[in-house]
Amino acid sequence: MSLFPMALHTDRTPPRGGKGRIVLVGAGPGARDLLTLRAVQRLQEADVVFFDRLVDEDVLELARPDAERVFVGKHVGAHSWPQERINEVIVAAALTGRNVVRLKSGDPGVFGRATEELDAARAHGIEVEIVPGVTAASAAAAALGQSLTERGVSDTLVMATGTGSADNPLPDCVRHASPGTTLAFYMSVGQAARITGALLAKGMPAGAEVQLAAEVAKPGQWLGRCGLSDLPDTLARHRVKGCAIILVTWPSKAVARPVAELVGAAG
Amino acid sequence: MSLFPMALHTDRTPPRGGKGRIVLVGAGPGARDLLTLRAVQRLQEADVVFFDRLVDEDVLELARPDAERVFVGKHVGAHSWPQERINEVIVAAALTGRNVVRLKSGDPGVFGRATEELDAARAHGIEVEIVPGVTAASAAAAALGQSLTERGVSDTLVMATGTGSADNPLPDCVRHASPGTTLAFYMSVGQAARITGALLAKGMPAGAEVQLAAEVAKPGQWLGRCGLSDLPDTLARHRVKGCAIILVTWPSKAVARPVAELVGAAG
Repeated sequence: MSLFPMALHTDRTPPRGGKGRIVLVGAGPGARDLLTLRAVQRLQEADVVFFDRLVDEDVLELARPDAERVFVGKHVGAHSWPQERINEVIVAAALTGRNVVRLKSGDPGVFGRATEELDAARAHGIEVEIVPGVTAASAAAAALGQSLTERGVSDTLVMATGTGSADNPLPDCVRHASPGTTLAFYMSVGQAARITGALLAKGMPAGAEVQLAAEVAKPGQWLGRCGLSDLPDTLARHRVKGCAIILVTWPSKAVARPVAELVGAAG
Repeated sequence: MSLFPMALHTDRTPPRGGKGRIVLVGAGPGARDLLTLRAVQRLQEADVVFFDRLVDEDVLELARPDAERVFVGKHVGAHSWPQERINEVIVAAALTGRNVVRLKSGDPGVFGRATEELDAARAHGIEVEIVPGVTAASAAAAALGQSLTERGVSDTLVMATGTGSADNPLPDCVRHASPGTTLAFYMSVGQAARITGALLAKGMPAGAEVQLAAEVAKPGQWLGRCGLSDLPDTLARHRVKGCAIILVTWPSKAVARPVAELVGAAG
């Protein structure tokens, strides 16, 4: 099934001054139909597409058949490409005059290492554009059939991550936990026990509702729900790994919604 | 210019049990090409589309010509539709067996009053779906050519709003301000002086970088940049009103990027 004709856009801008351009394109959470029209257009203009394991192969079909597709992600059992090497290859491709698309999961601006790629492009005088995308927390809430914010319950949304960098291995990702706040943890499954302990230590009720969305908008999508203190066990019991969003709401007032298991209710 | 053929999707599901369905569709920040493919598909399946003033007319062209379009927003000088009335009309339309799309600016889950509409639909046994969209902060950062998070500088993104509800007129939208955090304020232009004062009182440096994006991805897009203490003056000087995103980063360490005015640099 082709959702989109291949001849969508034809006015490909020729490279100026011999240089191509780099477009950081948000691919959304996974499903091809959660790309924006602009993302599809940029893919069809691309001479080369750099992608990583978070981008579904379906999405790559939206590029022209003759466009080069380059995998810059992590193979099972192997190390990821270092960010510096990704910067180098996208810059090198643009310097040869090609239209480069760097496909990034979700929105490039949210935990996407976009700054490094933007800085590398600009250091070489390469025109760069960002196409925003649907971030994983939005897709998770949509799959769960709920909002991320709610008047009188949660007036603030915090996006945090359990992963760190070499000089900051365990960021204080629970420092913003407080009543009236929804926390959306990205890439945090491996840190779930630590996060749970820290949230309980901050005074969040043990029964506070946690919602889970793994592999959102992908074929293996799994949705779950549990009380805060059951989070590590729930993740372990259902073998949730890798790409999942953990939504934790600390309501500003008591909400009359029962916390029920919603296990296996794939959308 | 039509970016999208009108006959994209033909397998419209007939209503079950006489009831239609309600789809809350994220329209993204404004530009038609920032809708997702799924949003376009749902628009083309719709018998009736409820929209408000935040949705560009361009976007409405994506619905079928024979679909009814109903404005439920604020006319200049008039009051908004109360949320309860919007709930009523979308439910009433679905109860007559029609496919209802409720178009919402940005992502339905972020300050979109989605919970009220979901609850109303479910109370009537109406099938409801959410199509996530590009939220305004992502579009603002993309237009500004930057990321919302940055390793070693800002590991957490907080989305807050300066608007409140009747029982909570001034939410403490700056309570999460702290080093290592980027704050994205939605619908907060009218509260800019109060927000600035509160951030300075929390110890944020007066020269902390603030970035501004008004009418993002719309014809009147305006981008600006200033130091924190200049925020209210900058907004007033450029007559920024209504729909704008205010991005404030309190870096976790000093960043060697000069704060320069970026006024009028529309993308």
